[in-house]
Amino acid sequence: METLKIVKIGGHIINDEVALNAFLDDFAQVTSPKILVHGGGKSATKLAQQMNIEVQMIEGRRITNAETLDIITMVYAGNINKKIVAKLQARNNNAMGFSGADGNCIVSEKRPVQTIDYGFVGDIKKVNTGNLKILLNQEITPVFCAITHDENGQLLNTNADTVASELAIAFANEYTTELYYCFEKNGVLEDVNNDDSVIETIDTKNYQTLLENKIISDGMLPKLTNCFHAIHHQVEKVHIGKSEMLLNKNLTHTTIQK
Amino acid sequence: METLKIVKIGGHIINDEVALNAFLDDFAQVTSPKILVHGGGKSATKLAQQMNIEVQMIEGRRITNAETLDIITMVYAGNINKKIVAKLQARNNNAMGFSGADGNCIVSEKRPVQTIDYGFVGDIKKVNTGNLKILLNQEITPVFCAITHDENGQLLNTNADTVASELAIAFANEYTTELYYCFEKNGVLEDVNNDDSVIETIDTKNYQTLLENKIISDGMLPKLTNCFHAIHHQVEKVHIGKSEMLLNKNLTHTTIQK
Repeated sequence: METLKIVKIGGHIINDEVALNAFLDDFAQVTSPKILVHGGGKSATKLAQQMNIEVQMIEGRRITNAETLDIITMVYAGNINKKIVAKLQARNNNAMGFSGADGNCIVSEKRPVQTIDYGFVGDIKKVNTGNLKILLNQEITPVFCAITHDENGQLLNTNADTVASELAIAFANEYTTELYYCFEKNGVLEDVNNDDSVIETIDTKNYQTLLENKIISDGMLPKLTNCFHAIHHQVEKVHIGKSEMLLNKNLTHTTIQK
Repeated sequence: METLKIVKIGGHIINDEVALNAFLDDFAQVTSPKILVHGGGKSATKLAQQMNIEVQMIEGRRITNAETLDIITMVYAGNINKKIVAKLQARNNNAMGFSGADGNCIVSEKRPVQTIDYGFVGDIKKVNTGNLKILLNQEITPVFCAITHDENGQLLNTNADTVASELAIAFANEYTTELYYCFEKNGVLEDVNNDDSVIETIDTKNYQTLLENKIISDGMLPKLTNCFHAIHHQVEKVHIGKSEMLLNKNLTHTTIQK
């Protein structure tokens, strides 16, 4: 089967014009079929502040009320997504920017209220790969922002790491899928203050030890949950590190294995 | 040849939730291949005010500096475009939302500075129909916001009426194209204060008379220029009026003829 690379970039790359351009230089050189996924949390917070809209956080997680969803849609699907697409076109990488509503590609359901009401947050139910495959065959790169929809007209804020892992899983029947989480660090670090302390391989077994020894930081936990979910659902490879790993296989980074 | 309907909606429909839903109810029932084009000027002005960003107007035209382009991209490509797509999906009308940068569909060049520097405003150079045709064949409705790009990474604010007419012209070799300008009035009016004074047919000949007698209002002039440009470049039909004309051919409205 042909390889499909699903690449997710985080806020640190998106919010830094130089870092974003450097990433896109690398990404545009990836010759296999590929999909880019981005979030953009910090830009949304900045816009909310400019508009004097309060950002509600509970246990470190953003609550998405209607106003916040509007902001997220403007920033993620509007400004960030279209800038990335235009920059890819300038690099002769034909791209189309999407939310999950576009082409009905990613369907989610509003997270049920239990102890916390997260508001307009969606948990992914289904990825429709058909139209995306047609575009991939035309050498078009889909660029997804982290917004999905419920098929009933409601857009929903969705975790970008999860969008990436669910895309990789959904395509695993049609391609050999590889999932890349690109961020500003060299990989998952044993010591968060030492960028050379990369844990090069994490598998189910040493992951338990890392958890028990509290070596995995809180922020890294949901990402690793997504990684293991992917690797246990036919995704061939999962990598975490700097975007240069896309082109240089020998670059030190973290690989997730079963 | 199969018919392709290019439908443009203006700010009055977009900014009014009830009017937008009513329009989309009609639009979703159009069974032929179709493309939707929207602007959204007033929402952009509102956001600029909320962000305390000054909107510069010269001779009634918005000057698009970098800040304004960001706002336009957020509002048009983000909030409005994705809401329309989600609402179409809820009506079982599969749709994908685009700027001209997506799929490199609409290429423009920054308007050269003569007496006025309009800033990041683009005049359309080329429409690439290939990938759009593939999507139309999949019964997907492209939804375009009025933003294009220059192929060098720069997004450009572009007149929505012109986006619609250039799309209609570009597809005229492959489809019988019909162009619909939907707005809140019944058509081009002889008396702007009398909604029953619709001029049912405007052709090259009576257009001159209407111009000489100053019956065409200033706001209607650029739209009619686009209409005649389209009709003289193989577009089969051009209509101006309420969106109900999409489904009811007998509804009074204005038809533009050669």
